[in-house]
Amino acid sequence: MKIILVGATGTISKHVYKTLSSQHDIIKASRHRGEVKVDMTSADSIKKMYEAVGDFDALICVAGNAHFGVFDEMKEDDFYKGIRSKMMGQINLVMIGKEYINDGGSFTLTTGILSEDPIRMGVGLSMVNGAVNAFAMAAAIELKRGIRINVVSPGMVEDSLETYGPYFPGHIPVPMWKAVSGYVKSVEGAISGEIIKIYG
Amino acid sequence: MKIILVGATGTISKHVYKTLSSQHDIIKASRHRGEVKVDMTSADSIKKMYEAVGDFDALICVAGNAHFGVFDEMKEDDFYKGIRSKMMGQINLVMIGKEYINDGGSFTLTTGILSEDPIRMGVGLSMVNGAVNAFAMAAAIELKRGIRINVVSPGMVEDSLETYGPYFPGHIPVPMWKAVSGYVKSVEGAISGEIIKIYG
Repeated sequence: MKIILVGATGTISKHVYKTLSSQHDIIKASRHRGEVKVDMTSADSIKKMYEAVGDFDALICVAGNAHFGVFDEMKEDDFYKGIRSKMMGQINLVMIGKEYINDGGSFTLTTGILSEDPIRMGVGLSMVNGAVNAFAMAAAIELKRGIRINVVSPGMVEDSLETYGPYFPGHIPVPMWKAVSGYVKSVEGAISGEIIKIYG
Repeated sequence: MKIILVGATGTISKHVYKTLSSQHDIIKASRHRGEVKVDMTSADSIKKMYEAVGDFDALICVAGNAHFGVFDEMKEDDFYKGIRSKMMGQINLVMIGKEYINDGGSFTLTTGILSEDPIRMGVGLSMVNGAVNAFAMAAAIELKRGIRINVVSPGMVEDSLETYGPYFPGHIPVPMWKAVSGYVKSVEGAISGEIIKIYG
């Protein structure tokens, strides 16, 4: 399969690349360093990415961010950081990409455990994850030409333990191979409209 | 209790008013016809509403909309209709209102069954409902002074059967008294961070 991997330089996506590249043709896309450049906060940039790549069989997005910070200090625009990036960025990848993807292709987005298991300072991420989960589930029933969509929702991955561990007290770190398996399941499997939860 | 009811002219909120007004002092707020005017898509307008009302014990929002339409025809801005109204409108009611609400007060927002049980043309609403559910769950753990927050997530209510029934094939209509009970539970009960699902 020809697979576009958006966010090719991140912690999880490096492992997704390593696992899937033995069987598939992966095109790395990211803001500064991919084979194809894409700024996922811009619909224009996303369109240019698809024009540059041409037809493809799967898109995996392991990118996008949201505000992380104390609830009491959050301003309206802090919510919009996540809305423009991890939320509408991923949604635009699907809305625009469905015009370019091959019959039977798949979209695999990324959210995370904070959609249902909150931590302090995580409200911006919880909101975005909840939105993308519900979007994917609803989009799945209206996508045509056998196009599928799923979300991988990992817990805090082991590789992030040093950086993020203190913010996730008592959360069970997820081995990277388990997180990666979610992407394999979505891309190579046949399911659609699923939130693939990989929590530990 | 002194309760602000945002969206005072809607189908559900009329019944919420009827049920709660025998025990509580309800201030109706809506865009054109409330005792207090509020445009929930504007943070400034929300702030003015709270300034006009003064301190209060509970806010109930049964307002806000989102784009309803065929997935394939949706543009980026269609998603933003819901983001600005039902999503960030409700979130702003909480973010701004937490500075005005009394100790131990409560916020009760409204989403709906489409967050987890999608219908055709409903992707804009599903997305918004998923976002608000996750927001409330996460906000609950960081709110201070004993302030609570819950979401009532009703299915299609019986009173909407004629208008919306054809869009909800096979959905079990929810008797209005059941939907209203969710608001009573949130306001008069002690729970917080809950999605109160009333699906039939």
